[in-house]
Amino acid sequence: MRAVDIIIKKREKGELTQEEINFFVQGFVKGDIPDYQVSAWAMAVLLNGMTPQETTDLTLAMVLSGRILDLTGVVDIAVDKHSSGGVGDKTTLVVLPIVAACGLPVGKMSGRGLGFSGGTLDKMESIPGYRVDLNTDEFKRQLKEKGIVLTGQSLDLAPADGKLYSLRDVTGTVPSIPLIASSIMSKKIAAGAQAIVLDVKVGNGAFMETLDMARELSALMVQIGDLAGRKTICLLSDMNQPLGHAVGNALEVKEAIDTLKGDGPADFREHCLHVSAYMLVVGKRAKDLNEGRGMAEKAIANGSAFEKFRVLVAAQGGDVSYVDDSDRMARAKFVEVVKAPCSGFLSRVDARGVGEASVALGAGRAKKSDAVDHAVGFIIHHKVGERVEQGEPLFTIHANDERKLAEARASVLSAHIIGNAIVPPLPLFYE
Amino acid sequence: MRAVDIIIKKREKGELTQEEINFFVQGFVKGDIPDYQVSAWAMAVLLNGMTPQETTDLTLAMVLSGRILDLTGVVDIAVDKHSSGGVGDKTTLVVLPIVAACGLPVGKMSGRGLGFSGGTLDKMESIPGYRVDLNTDEFKRQLKEKGIVLTGQSLDLAPADGKLYSLRDVTGTVPSIPLIASSIMSKKIAAGAQAIVLDVKVGNGAFMETLDMARELSALMVQIGDLAGRKTICLLSDMNQPLGHAVGNALEVKEAIDTLKGDGPADFREHCLHVSAYMLVVGKRAKDLNEGRGMAEKAIANGSAFEKFRVLVAAQGGDVSYVDDSDRMARAKFVEVVKAPCSGFLSRVDARGVGEASVALGAGRAKKSDAVDHAVGFIIHHKVGERVEQGEPLFTIHANDERKLAEARASVLSAHIIGNAIVPPLPLFYE
Repeated sequence: MRAVDIIIKKREKGELTQEEINFFVQGFVKGDIPDYQVSAWAMAVLLNGMTPQETTDLTLAMVLSGRILDLTGVVDIAVDKHSSGGVGDKTTLVVLPIVAACGLPVGKMSGRGLGFSGGTLDKMESIPGYRVDLNTDEFKRQLKEKGIVLTGQSLDLAPADGKLYSLRDVTGTVPSIPLIASSIMSKKIAAGAQAIVLDVKVGNGAFMETLDMARELSALMVQIGDLAGRKTICLLSDMNQPLGHAVGNALEVKEAIDTLKGDGPADFREHCLHVSAYMLVVGKRAKDLNEGRGMAEKAIANGSAFEKFRVLVAAQGGDVSYVDDSDRMARAKFVEVVKAPCSGFLSRVDARGVGEASVALGAGRAKKSDAVDHAVGFIIHHKVGERVEQGEPLFTIHANDERKLAEARASVLSAHIIGNAIVPPLPLFYE
Repeated sequence: MRAVDIIIKKREKGELTQEEINFFVQGFVKGDIPDYQVSAWAMAVLLNGMTPQETTDLTLAMVLSGRILDLTGVVDIAVDKHSSGGVGDKTTLVVLPIVAACGLPVGKMSGRGLGFSGGTLDKMESIPGYRVDLNTDEFKRQLKEKGIVLTGQSLDLAPADGKLYSLRDVTGTVPSIPLIASSIMSKKIAAGAQAIVLDVKVGNGAFMETLDMARELSALMVQIGDLAGRKTICLLSDMNQPLGHAVGNALEVKEAIDTLKGDGPADFREHCLHVSAYMLVVGKRAKDLNEGRGMAEKAIANGSAFEKFRVLVAAQGGDVSYVDDSDRMARAKFVEVVKAPCSGFLSRVDARGVGEASVALGAGRAKKSDAVDHAVGFIIHHKVGERVEQGEPLFTIHANDERKLAEARASVLSAHIIGNAIVPPLPLFYE
C-alpha cells in the first residue's frame, strides 16, 4: 500500500477501505507518511467528502492511535458532552455540577479557545490554582471519589487527531464536516465515553453557520456513534447571538456561578437545564426528559449543584474562596458601560463580531502562543427581540488597555442592530 | 499575506492574483512556505482549476524563480519544441538535426523517462560518452558554433518547477491541466524560447488520454504563450499505439538514425517531417508548411540531417562510431521474435501496455534512483489497421533477463488485439 495511491483514490472520489484509512493514520502518527501527503489528502477529503463508513473508520483509527481511557469500575456508565463551540458558551461549567449533583458522575476533557470561540480550560483558569493537567490516574481517582472532573485533553488520547488538527489549521482544511466529526468523536471515544450528548451550535458565532451544515454534522456524528457502539444524542442550538450575557473568561465563570446559585440569564439557565436533562437520560439517572429536567432544577434550587462546583474546584487545586466570592476574580482596569444610541427592537447581536472583539481585547488568542487575559470581556445586556431605550446600558466593556477599549466599543456597537420593527426572539434550540 | 489564506481562496474556487501567486511561488522556493501547504494548495488547484491568467502568472512566477537563458546574439530567433511524452517517441532525435541542417539553429533541454513514457536523455545516453550536463556557457557556445544542442534541463532554470513537480509526484497532484501547462511552459520560457512548437500526445500511451483533455492543455499552453509574448503552436498527435516500431533506448536511437538516413518506419518519418516543417515556419526559415516540408525532406535526402546528428554527438562527447554503425550499441542478451498467434487485422497495439512492459524490462525506472538498461526494449512490427498472418513476426523482445523476457512476452502479446474486422489505421495527427 502506498500513501500516494490513497490520496489519488480520494482525489478521484473513491471510497477508502478501513485498511487504507488505518494504514494512512498509522503512517502519519509514526512519521512514515509526511505532512505534505496528509495535507494533500485532507484537501481532497474536504473537496470530495467521505462516506459515514469512511468517517467512522477514520474516527476509530484515530482512537486506536493512542491510549483509550477505560472507565469500567470507575463509573457505571461513562457519559460525556461536547459543544461545537461558540461565544459565551460556558454550559459545561453549569451542566457538569448539575448532573454530578444528581448522582451521575461525569469526567470531561475540554479544550482551549479557538479563534472567536472561547475555551472551557481558559475560563476555569480564571480561578487561581485550578489545574487542567490531571493525569489519567488522577482523573480516575477524582471521578470515583468526587463524581466530577473537568480537565484538559490528555496528550496520549487520540494523538492522531491532535497532529491532524494542527496540520489542518495551517493548510486551509479545517471546515470539512467529516474531518470535524471524526475529530470530535475520536476524542470522546478515546476518553472512554459510552454515551455522548453533543451540542452543535448553529449560527454566525459557530463553526457551522447554517442549519443544513449543522444537521449534516450532527447526523454524521450520530452515525459514527451508532457504528462505533456509542449512544449519541445531538442537539442543535442557536449561536447567532452570544449565549447568556457574559463573554470573557472570569466574567463567564461568574455568570456560571450565578446560574448555579439560581440566578443568571434566563436563556443560559434554560440551555443548561435542557442539556442536563438529556445527560441524565442517556446516563440512565432519569427515565425521561421531564424527570431529568425536574432533577436538574432541584439540584440548583437545593444548592447541591453549586456545592458540586465547589468540590470540583477544590479537588483540582483551585481557590474556593474565589467561587464563594466571585467578585474576587481578576477585574479589568477599565469598566465602561456603553449606552444604546437609539430606541427600538434589537434585531441582531452578531455573535462572531462579539467573539472577535473579545479575542482582540485579549480574552482569546490570535496566535497559539499568546497569553489569555482572564479579566477582559463584555456583558451583553440584551437579547435579540428585546426592546431597548436610548440611553439605557447596551453592553459593558471590561478592558485593560485604553486603545483596545476604544476598538471594542466601536466593534461591539456595530455588532448590535436596533430597528423599529418588532423582532421575534431567537430560538434556543432548533432540534 | 499568508499562505493559508491563498490556499483557502483556491479551496473556495477564487481566482488568485498575480501578487498572491508570486508570493506563494517565491515563499515555496525560499523555503518560507512549507511543502505541506504547497501540496494542499496543489490539490485545491487540481480539483478546482485555475484560469488562463492564473496559469500564466504561475508560469511566469516559476520562470522568475531562477535564471533565464538569454540567447540574444547567439541565434536570430530561439525556437524550441516539446513533446508531452509517449511510447516510442524519439522525434527530437530526428527533428533537431533536420531543422539544424536547414539552417535553423536549435538548442533543446530535454528530460528523462517518466512512468511508462520514455525520456530523450536516457535514449541519447545509449551512445557512449554522450554528455547531457552541459552548462550554460557550453550550451551557448555549442549552439552558436554547431547550430545544435540536446542536453538536460539546467537546474538553475525555473527551479520552482522542479521543486513543485517533485512534490506533485508524491502527493497525487500530477494530472492537473493548469499545473502541467505551467510546468512545460515555464521550462521553455526560462530556456529562452521565443517560438515554441508543442506536440501534445493523445491516447492511452500519453498523459492526456482523451482528445478533450489534450485540446484543453493545448489551448491553455497557446494562451500562456500569447500572454507571455511567445509564439506558440500546438500539434495534437496520436499516442494510442507506439510511434514508429522501436521502444527502448538504444533501439530507438537506432531507429532515429535509420530515419535520418532516409529509412525508418513510415509513420515516424511522416511525424518528424510534419513537426520539422512547423519549426522551420515558426523559426522563419520557411514561408509556409509546404516549403518547410520540402526543406526537411531534402535534408534527409542529401544526408545533411544525418551529418548534423553526427556533429551533435561529437560536440557533446559521444562516440560517433556508434552513430556510423548503430549495431555497435548495447545489445541485449536475449532477442526473441514473437509470432502472431492468429491471422487478422490489428485493431489495437496498446501503447501504455507496451510502455509499462518496457519499464518492467528495465528500459525505464520504477523509482527515480533506478538505473536504466539501454539495450532492452521491443520492436513492434505492425501498426493498427495492418493485416497480419498467423506465424509472422508480431514483435521482437530484447531482454537481459529470462524471467523478465517471459513477463514481457505475455504482456506485449496481450497489448496486441487481432480481429476479423477491417480496422482503419490510426491518424498520425488530430489537429
